[in-house]
Amino acid sequence: MIKRVPKLYCEHLNKLKIDRRLPTAELLAKLGIVSYPHSGLVNWTKTGLLTLDKISSIIRKSLDSRGYEELRLSLLSHKDAWVTTERWFHKDFFKIKDENFLLVPTAEEPITEHMKRALESYKQLPLTYYQINQKFRKEKRARGGLLRGKEFLMKDAYSFDVDEASALKTYEDMTGAYHEIFQNIGVSYVRAQADSGSIGGEMSHEWHLSNETGEDTIFTCDSCGHVSNIEKTLSLPTDEQLQNWGSGDVSVAYFTNNKRDTLVCAYYPADRVLEPKFLLSEIPDLDITDARPDSEKVQQFETMSEADMNASVVRVMDARLNSRSNFPDFPIKFANRSMITTLTDVPIVSANEGEVCGECEDGTLTKSKAIEIGHTFYLDDKYSKPMELKIDVPTEKGIDKRYVKMGCYGIGVSRLVGAVAEINRDDGGLRWPRSIAPWEVTVVSDHDSSKIDEMVEQLSRLDYRWDDRNEPIGKKIRESNIMGIPLVVVLGKNYPVVEIEVRGTMDTTAREQIKQASIDAAFHWEIAPQDHNHPAKHFVDKDHLVHVVNKILVHL
Amino acid sequence: MIKRVPKLYCEHLNKLKIDRRLPTAELLAKLGIVSYPHSGLVNWTKTGLLTLDKISSIIRKSLDSRGYEELRLSLLSHKDAWVTTERWFHKDFFKIKDENFLLVPTAEEPITEHMKRALESYKQLPLTYYQINQKFRKEKRARGGLLRGKEFLMKDAYSFDVDEASALKTYEDMTGAYHEIFQNIGVSYVRAQADSGSIGGEMSHEWHLSNETGEDTIFTCDSCGHVSNIEKTLSLPTDEQLQNWGSGDVSVAYFTNNKRDTLVCAYYPADRVLEPKFLLSEIPDLDITDARPDSEKVQQFETMSEADMNASVVRVMDARLNSRSNFPDFPIKFANRSMITTLTDVPIVSANEGEVCGECEDGTLTKSKAIEIGHTFYLDDKYSKPMELKIDVPTEKGIDKRYVKMGCYGIGVSRLVGAVAEINRDDGGLRWPRSIAPWEVTVVSDHDSSKIDEMVEQLSRLDYRWDDRNEPIGKKIRESNIMGIPLVVVLGKNYPVVEIEVRGTMDTTAREQIKQASIDAAFHWEIAPQDHNHPAKHFVDKDHLVHVVNKILVHL
Repeated sequence: MIKRVPKLYCEHLNKLKIDRRLPTAELLAKLGIVSYPHSGLVNWTKTGLLTLDKISSIIRKSLDSRGYEELRLSLLSHKDAWVTTERWFHKDFFKIKDENFLLVPTAEEPITEHMKRALESYKQLPLTYYQINQKFRKEKRARGGLLRGKEFLMKDAYSFDVDEASALKTYEDMTGAYHEIFQNIGVSYVRAQADSGSIGGEMSHEWHLSNETGEDTIFTCDSCGHVSNIEKTLSLPTDEQLQNWGSGDVSVAYFTNNKRDTLVCAYYPADRVLEPKFLLSEIPDLDITDARPDSEKVQQFETMSEADMNASVVRVMDARLNSRSNFPDFPIKFANRSMITTLTDVPIVSANEGEVCGECEDGTLTKSKAIEIGHTFYLDDKYSKPMELKIDVPTEKGIDKRYVKMGCYGIGVSRLVGAVAEINRDDGGLRWPRSIAPWEVTVVSDHDSSKIDEMVEQLSRLDYRWDDRNEPIGKKIRESNIMGIPLVVVLGKNYPVVEIEVRGTMDTTAREQIKQASIDAAFHWEIAPQDHNHPAKHFVDKDHLVHVVNKILVHL
Repeated sequence: MIKRVPKLYCEHLNKLKIDRRLPTAELLAKLGIVSYPHSGLVNWTKTGLLTLDKISSIIRKSLDSRGYEELRLSLLSHKDAWVTTERWFHKDFFKIKDENFLLVPTAEEPITEHMKRALESYKQLPLTYYQINQKFRKEKRARGGLLRGKEFLMKDAYSFDVDEASALKTYEDMTGAYHEIFQNIGVSYVRAQADSGSIGGEMSHEWHLSNETGEDTIFTCDSCGHVSNIEKTLSLPTDEQLQNWGSGDVSVAYFTNNKRDTLVCAYYPADRVLEPKFLLSEIPDLDITDARPDSEKVQQFETMSEADMNASVVRVMDARLNSRSNFPDFPIKFANRSMITTLTDVPIVSANEGEVCGECEDGTLTKSKAIEIGHTFYLDDKYSKPMELKIDVPTEKGIDKRYVKMGCYGIGVSRLVGAVAEINRDDGGLRWPRSIAPWEVTVVSDHDSSKIDEMVEQLSRLDYRWDDRNEPIGKKIRESNIMGIPLVVVLGKNYPVVEIEVRGTMDTTAREQIKQASIDAAFHWEIAPQDHNHPAKHFVDKDHLVHVVNKILVHL
C-alpha cells in the first residue's frame, strides 16, 4: 500500500502568510495538524496523531524497558476518593452535572483505589504503572492551544514502594527514563528542582524546554550546574551587592509557628520579593499559610507572651542585609532580650539573575524562561495515608503495618507537541526533529506515476508520505518544508536520478559528516551547496535513495 | 528484552472458582483483565489493553486500506452544535457542571463542525474519517461491565459525500470493511436491517454476535437469508395460523396523519404486539409520535370530518386477520362509506418465530438472541442540514448548493471484548480467538532460566509472554488456560524437547490438518491424543518450536 499525505493536507495553506508573528497555535491549525473546536479544546487530525503517536511510542519504549506497566484508568472518577483526599472541591476540576463524578485531572486517587483492590502482599512491590490518556482541567487562561488546554493528553505514572529508600530508588529510575525520553525526542531540556504545589509530597522536579516564550522561570548555576524553579532557587548576594546595598530600606513580614508561641520576623530588602517557603528550612514548624494581617499576628503573640514562659522571637535576616541596613522598628513594646534569637545570612527572597548560587555558594545564577513539559513528585504517603493503602511488612519486631510510599510522574504529551513546534519553528514554518515528525520524508513526483510504482519497494523501508495531489512540484516542496517534514524526495525530470532536499540548515559537523559519507559511497552522490536561502540538495541514482536518506536523517 | 506476563498476573486466581454461573464481567475482573472502579466504569490493565489494542489494529488495517483517515476529536463538546441538532437535552448525555460542555456520546455534531472548517470544495469529497476513543452515556442499566457502560471505547466513522448515489457507495464500501473486520477477528456475526433510533437517518444496519445471553432479538429467513432486528422484521402468517386463528379477538389502535385529516385504524390480533413504524410503508405521513389517547384522536377527527371534504379513513388489517375475525365496533357514529379505504394483508405486528418472511414471502423466520457490536447508518442530511454543512456543486443549470450526504458507522470496541469473552468462554474459563488474545503463547519453564535465554531468539518471532513467577509449572499451565491464551509452551524436564499444549478442543478438520503437518514435517513431531479432559499436546525439539506453533495457530 502506498502511503499518501492526509486527504486535506495543506488545504488552507494558500491563504497562509508564514510569519514569525503568527502564533504557533494558529500555525498548527492553519497547517491542518490540529483544529480548535472551542477555546482550550483540540481536535487532532491524522498529521497531528502521527506526531502524538511517535511521542507516545518513545515514552512507552523507555517505560516498558524498565518493567513499568501500562494500564488505562477510567476518565470518570467517583467523588468518594476525592473527598477522602480533600481534593473534591478543587476549583479547577470538571464535575459532571447531577452526578457524583469528576473528569480526571490527574489520577492519584483512582490508581490508589485500583491498587487497594489489586495489591495483596508487600512482596509484589515495587510496582510502577503508567497510562497515556486524556486529562481535564478548567483552564481560565487557555493559552496557545496545546500549551494550556481544558483537555490534554498526558503520560502519568505512579509508583508504589515498601519504604522510602526503595521509593527514592524508583524515583531515580524514573528520572533515568525521563532523561532517556527527552534525549530520544532530541530536544534540549533541563530538570529543575521544584515546589510540589497542589499535588503535594516531599520532593519534586520540573522538566523544561528552555524557550524565551515560556511562562516558567528557572535558574541555572554556572558552577555546580544546579537548576531550579524560581520558587526553589536559593540565592546569596554578590560582593558588589553587599557593599553597595547595605544601607537600603528593609521590609519585614511577621509569621508565627503552628503552636503560635514563636513570632518570626523576616527582614528582607524592600525592593525584593519574599519567598516565605524559604523560611521553612530554618523554622520547619512555621505556619506560612496563616492569612491574618501582620498586626494581628503580632498583637496575639504579644498578649500570649506575657503569660507564657515558652514564648520566643526569631529574627531572620535575608543574606543581602547587614548591620548598616535601615531596619524598621521592633513591633513589640517590651522585649525581653533573652527571648530573642537572630539568624543572619539566610536567603529568603526570590533570586535575581547574577546572584550567587545558594546550593554551592560559589557559582553565578543565570535566569531563563522555559516551557514545562514534565513534573516528577515523590509523594511519600500523601495519598496512601488518607486512602489507607497499607501493607503488612514482617520485621524483627513482628508485623509492621505501613502506608505504601508513592511517587507520581507526568509528561504533557500534547503540550510537548506545542512546545517543540514553538521552539523549533523558523521563518520558513515548522521544523520537527526527525524523532517526532509526522513522517520523515515527503515524496513528490511529476505526473508520471510509474516512477512511484518503481520506487514503492524502496520507499517501504522509509517513513514517507507521497504527496499525490495535482499540484506543481515546487508548491509541494514548499508545503512540505512549511509543514516541517525533515526531507523531500523529488522524483522529477532527472529521474532515475532523484533529488533529496533537506528542511532548514544543518550545522557544520553534520554537513562535514554527510560530505564524508558521500565521498565514501560506492556510487555517485552529488551535493549542491547549502546556504540560508537554498537548503542542501542531494542527487543520487534511485537505487541508492534509502542509503542516502538514512545517512542524512541521523543528523536531523 | 524478554516479554513477561503482567506483574499482577492471575493474582486473585487462587480465590476463584471457575464456573459457568460466574458472570463473564466478574470473571474478567477476577482474572485481572479489567477492574470496575464504579458501576459502569472500567479500568483496563495491561492484559486488557493488549486485547483492546489488537482489536483496534484490526479495525485500523481495514479502514486505512480503504483510504479512510483517522483523527481524534475532543471528548468535550460545546453546547451550541447540540442545540442546533436538538440533542442537547437528551437525557442520556453527561453534561459538565457549570459549563456549556457535554462529554461526547457519539460525534456527529463535532465532526460536522470540523468538516465545516476544513471542507473547501466538493472536489475533496468523498471523505471518510474515523476515530477510536472514549464515548460516554448515562446507562441506568449498566450491564455486565463491558457490555453496557457509562464510559466505553468506540470506533466511530463518519462519511461525507456529494450526493446520495456516492453516499450509498461509501456505505457499501464501509459494509465491506465491517465484514473484513469481523472476519479477521474470527467471530461469527450477522448483519441485520435495523431501525435508526435516536441517531436517525434513512437506513441502518446492526452488526451482531449471536448469543443466547444477548439482549437484542433478531430474525433470520431460511430462504432469502434476510436478517433483521425485531423492530424491522416484517412477517406474514403461516397457512396454519390463517386457518386456526381467524375468529380470534382483534385489537385496534388509532392514528392520524401529520395534517390530521386522515384517521388510520390499525387492526391486529389481540395477542400480538403492534409495531406502528410498519404502518409508515403504507401511510408515509402517519404521525406515530402523537401521544394523545385514542379517544381524543378519534373525537378530533370526527369533529373535523364533518366540515372537511378531504377527510378520509384508512383501515389497515394485519396480514394475520381475515373476515371471520372478531373486529371491534367502528368508533365513528356516522360513516360515509366513500371516505373509507381498507388495506388488507399488511404485516403490522412484531414477528414470531416460525412465521413467513415478509421480504421474500416464502421462507420461515428463525428468532435468535444476539449481542450488538456495531451499527451503520446512512444519515442523508440529518446533521448537515441543521448544521449547514453545504457545498457548491456545478451542474448544467449553474451552481447547486447542496447539503453534504453523511453516514456514520460505529463499532463498540470495549463491548466487543466483553461479547467475545462471553461467547467463547467454556467450563475451563476464557478462550480468546488467536486474533485478539492478549498474547498467543504463554511460556512456562522450570527454575532453570538458561532455557529461556537459549530460546529467546526463537521466542522473539512469536507473540508470547513468559510466566516467570515462582509457581509450580502445572499451576501456570492451568492459569494460562483459564486466562484463555491459545497455547502454552513448556520448557521442562524433557528439554530440549518442548511441549506445546492447546487451550480447548479443536474440530476434526483442524486436527487432521495438524496431524498431516506433523507427518509432512522434516523432524520428529509427536502429538498426544486429544479428549475433553486432556487437550492436545505436541512434543518437538526446541529448534522447531516456531514452525509447530505457527502450524497450530492458524487453526485458532
